[in-house]
Amino acid sequence: MSEAILAHPRFISLEGGEGAGKSTAIASLRDVLQKRGHEVLLTREPGGTPLAERIRALMLDNRQALRGDGDEDEPLSAEAELLLVFAARAQHVRQVIRPALQRGVFVVSDRFTDSSYAYQGDGRGLDMGWIAELERRAVGLRPALTLLLDLDVREGRARIAGRDLWPDRIESEQDDFFERVRAGFRRRAAAEPERFRVVDAARTPGEVGEAVAAALIAWLERAS
Amino acid sequence: MSEAILAHPRFISLEGGEGAGKSTAIASLRDVLQKRGHEVLLTREPGGTPLAERIRALMLDNRQALRGDGDEDEPLSAEAELLLVFAARAQHVRQVIRPALQRGVFVVSDRFTDSSYAYQGDGRGLDMGWIAELERRAVGLRPALTLLLDLDVREGRARIAGRDLWPDRIESEQDDFFERVRAGFRRRAAAEPERFRVVDAARTPGEVGEAVAAALIAWLERAS
Repeated sequence: MSEAILAHPRFISLEGGEGAGKSTAIASLRDVLQKRGHEVLLTREPGGTPLAERIRALMLDNRQALRGDGDEDEPLSAEAELLLVFAARAQHVRQVIRPALQRGVFVVSDRFTDSSYAYQGDGRGLDMGWIAELERRAVGLRPALTLLLDLDVREGRARIAGRDLWPDRIESEQDDFFERVRAGFRRRAAAEPERFRVVDAARTPGEVGEAVAAALIAWLERAS
Repeated sequence: MSEAILAHPRFISLEGGEGAGKSTAIASLRDVLQKRGHEVLLTREPGGTPLAERIRALMLDNRQALRGDGDEDEPLSAEAELLLVFAARAQHVRQVIRPALQRGVFVVSDRFTDSSYAYQGDGRGLDMGWIAELERRAVGLRPALTLLLDLDVREGRARIAGRDLWPDRIESEQDDFFERVRAGFRRRAAAEPERFRVVDAARTPGEVGEAVAAALIAWLERAS
């Protein structure tokens, strides 16, 4: 099935769990590309378009009861979560990512389809074949390079503790969920060594940024 | 694939285009069932739960520019539309429809999966195999009886003209879209005569309500 999915040479994604330092890392990636004269678009998932950001808000909302809208809390089913993520991604690819790639721009996305395999597949236990079908039908595009920031789950959660007064619906999951997510990312990285570069995120954000920049430079020089 | 999809004997859907008189018809269905001593839940799609209604609003919103939120209008891709509809349906089935059926309640839904085949499949041209896969994986449930209110497209549109000052995103489509939708509904009804009853909606709402009630009574007496 993956034959139908194009790995675009100017499309890069960054993956990793909570607290792994993705914000600093994505700025490093942008700097490397811009210094080499490339136009860069930074984007994120779920989201990246106004409509997709509204889908993100709906999906991550953990506070219905606090909004005072009279609705009881309604658990979002795993199936609906998966379909919302892919609805947002279908918009993101068509409205933002593909048009930018076609203009010659480098696109760096904070999360992409690998997060769906990890969070909804490994984390929630949904069928990987279904996710592959959604990737093929709704997305049809993969990064040529994926940088995975790998970090111990408890260390990551300790780093973000206190960052948000109100953790969102994913952040509210338990450690065993995040352990499955981390194992899923690592397994995918091991299965696709051509595309993935795993960066040890158990360092300072500055060091992680440098490691990410070095990995990108090596990849660019290897590819050219 | 349809072997995995249960047709529940207390689950009834009502389908049809714009202006066919579904509101009056659904009240007739409720009255017939209640007079026979059944508990009835009326619901609708897309929607039927607080979260699914928020997905509906996002999907049908045609007025981003008028909301004054500064976003430019963003066309919703057919793929994202399909995934949003099925995300809402996954919630609706798990939160509302299955629990009600398990309590012994009759559920009457204003639209269900047949609308996805007609609007997103025949109307938008998305692959029917994909829709069938989504039905199997995200829904797994079908009505035992589907009443299709069939009406000439221009007659239906004339009836709703003036009803809404701001037509929604689906209502804003052109006649050829609705002709494909109507043809799709009729083709599905012809292919599944056991489940579908086609009601001529080129009559007054009262007459359509009576025809729908008669069809339901005949079906109940045949089934018992």
